[in-house]
Amino acid sequence: MSTPWTLSRRAERMNPSVIREILKLTAQPGIISLAGGLPSPATFPVDAFAQACAEVLATDGPAALQYAASEGHGPLREWVAAQLPWAVDPAQVLITTGSQQALDLVGKVLIDSGSRVLVETPTYLGALQAFAPMEPQIEGVACTDEGPDPDDLVRRGPSARFLYVLPNFQNPTGRSLSEGARQALVQQADRLGLPLVEDNPYGELWFDQPPPAPLSARHPDGCLYLGSFSKVLAPGLRLGYVVAPKAIFPKLLQAKQAADLHTPGFNQRLASAVLRDGFMERHVPRVRALYRQQCRVMLDALGHEMGGLGVQWNAPEGGMFLWLRLPEGMDATALLPQAVARGVAYVPGAAFYADSADPRTLRLSFVTASEDQIRSGIAALAATVREALPRPTAVPVARPQSSGVTA
Amino acid sequence: MSTPWTLSRRAERMNPSVIREILKLTAQPGIISLAGGLPSPATFPVDAFAQACAEVLATDGPAALQYAASEGHGPLREWVAAQLPWAVDPAQVLITTGSQQALDLVGKVLIDSGSRVLVETPTYLGALQAFAPMEPQIEGVACTDEGPDPDDLVRRGPSARFLYVLPNFQNPTGRSLSEGARQALVQQADRLGLPLVEDNPYGELWFDQPPPAPLSARHPDGCLYLGSFSKVLAPGLRLGYVVAPKAIFPKLLQAKQAADLHTPGFNQRLASAVLRDGFMERHVPRVRALYRQQCRVMLDALGHEMGGLGVQWNAPEGGMFLWLRLPEGMDATALLPQAVARGVAYVPGAAFYADSADPRTLRLSFVTASEDQIRSGIAALAATVREALPRPTAVPVARPQSSGVTA
Repeated sequence: MSTPWTLSRRAERMNPSVIREILKLTAQPGIISLAGGLPSPATFPVDAFAQACAEVLATDGPAALQYAASEGHGPLREWVAAQLPWAVDPAQVLITTGSQQALDLVGKVLIDSGSRVLVETPTYLGALQAFAPMEPQIEGVACTDEGPDPDDLVRRGPSARFLYVLPNFQNPTGRSLSEGARQALVQQADRLGLPLVEDNPYGELWFDQPPPAPLSARHPDGCLYLGSFSKVLAPGLRLGYVVAPKAIFPKLLQAKQAADLHTPGFNQRLASAVLRDGFMERHVPRVRALYRQQCRVMLDALGHEMGGLGVQWNAPEGGMFLWLRLPEGMDATALLPQAVARGVAYVPGAAFYADSADPRTLRLSFVTASEDQIRSGIAALAATVREALPRPTAVPVARPQSSGVTA
Repeated sequence: MSTPWTLSRRAERMNPSVIREILKLTAQPGIISLAGGLPSPATFPVDAFAQACAEVLATDGPAALQYAASEGHGPLREWVAAQLPWAVDPAQVLITTGSQQALDLVGKVLIDSGSRVLVETPTYLGALQAFAPMEPQIEGVACTDEGPDPDDLVRRGPSARFLYVLPNFQNPTGRSLSEGARQALVQQADRLGLPLVEDNPYGELWFDQPPPAPLSARHPDGCLYLGSFSKVLAPGLRLGYVVAPKAIFPKLLQAKQAADLHTPGFNQRLASAVLRDGFMERHVPRVRALYRQQCRVMLDALGHEMGGLGVQWNAPEGGMFLWLRLPEGMDATALLPQAVARGVAYVPGAAFYADSADPRTLRLSFVTASEDQIRSGIAALAATVREALPRPTAVPVARPQSSGVTA
């Protein structure tokens, strides 16, 4: 019998994800992975979940295990609305199967084949993957530490469907938008008639002070706001949400219903039970303190190990990642096998660019590895860079036999 | 500030689901709903889940709450492969967030804008909704009790991307394909080069004897097979799966990763723990016995109440639904408000047709309501039909004023 399949154009274009392949590589024993964006399992409130499971099944078992409304569990929607720093009606909150699903739904509702969609340079790889099935033309807006470049936005903004932006401790760079940059961006987007899709999975993970108010708080009707429970509670429940203007909500809801009917009702009730009574106020400061400490260890190790190598990096004020730039002429993708051979893995920055990539960049996560692993990993990365550095042109000397040793 | 949103074409075309709106209506107290496809909560193994929650969190908590592989949890994939009645490699099993998500992924991987997709007449509404975002041209193949009409398949098969088919206790009709019909369909599909997408959420819910082997068992390379834990375990966990030929699996996997990264790992471990040690062999017979009994009650009530009304219905051999046809000239959508006024709800059949609908049809579920509710609901439905029947043409008499009363 024959195989009769015809793939869609989008499926023909799908390629294995770089991050997926690397994560496989780093599952080898002995490799220190600074690659994955996995929250520290030490922060998962396992006991609180165990208690919540027992309670939800004892008091509300049949409803928790039944089909449920596509909008999400009422008390969880109310919790989300109440904790956001602007006036949000729970009826505007759609609970999603992780915030990754919110990206899929946004794509379905806002992107036609060929639509122009703007993203930061660089941006979250998963967003590029989520939007891709709708066949947009994705363009990276030039970015500085102050966010999207206003001149480039003026050029690209008109007729774009939206700008996707992560203002807090961005994945992959760890950078954040200042108060001034946020004000300017919202005003410019409004002038341009450019909707903003604001993704905020990391906003609670600040080190010393909370970030400025979200873009959505400044212009709710012009923004979609995506949030996640993965970084402050646990990713394995797959709980996220999108807050939508009333004009967009019904369409997102219908896309949600078609995508998976609803997010697991059991999981929503678990989160709701765990989050009661100020759990976040006790829990999240511990996560912040851990990540701040681990970030400091990584920055110290970088300062200690990378001296004189011509490597640049930033010092994030929160989140899970920092961004590193190798010396001129070096390529982070090409260097990865050598790093893995020395026992450390990272994600080459190239994966995070919508169009032309800076091959010197790479992303480091400081949240999954232990302090000792971070120190060893950065030392191994420095050794990898040192070995790959072009040697200074040697003054020829009369010892040709030894060149093989030092090459 | 202005609202700058431009919706995609597919979003512009989205309309509120008929079923959604009806389910809202039937949430009113006192309405007996024979509409929803909700498994009986009496069948949910709440205690087994409570035990599994405690065990999973105690022995494997951090991993259960962490990000996980997009393919799904290894032991659950192995369980699925082992219980299917043909040789399936666990590497071909993709765990999905309910089998509804498998429909979304299938659409992404196999449908381009304008692709011709074939479905049964009528078919599962959720599949029509899941495929719609990929903008196919969906065509209903003429169907009899023996399944898709071979002559119509010959006409429509060439150049169609696939035929979506539910061979067991179909939603909405409750009908099943015989052994002969399955053999003929698989052979014809192979001759036509027509892939089959086989959806089997209800196959375990047989009353007196198991259905014939799935289509996929007869031609694994030409079929995608969708399964679900919603009907035999619990829908609120959102666990389903798709079994794919090796040529298609990597594309479905990438679409899955982009859609929600992975299905909740906690839920997958719960199912895996509950399913160990032959749970299904003890549990599913109880579900079958309950549904068989409730179906019998509904069939008895229909026989008792509908006599002489010209209503037709079928007697399913399993599943959750039966299909009813109102007398000539009646319209099930138009009749629904009158039925609800009498305290009973159903789903008008029109929702389940890809193209031209039979307005006389409607779907009844026999699994959610109790036996007493089924009897009362069918009595109310019969009264509704009786009231709506065209009166026999009266011999004109000399009382013109009263015509308004009997019209």
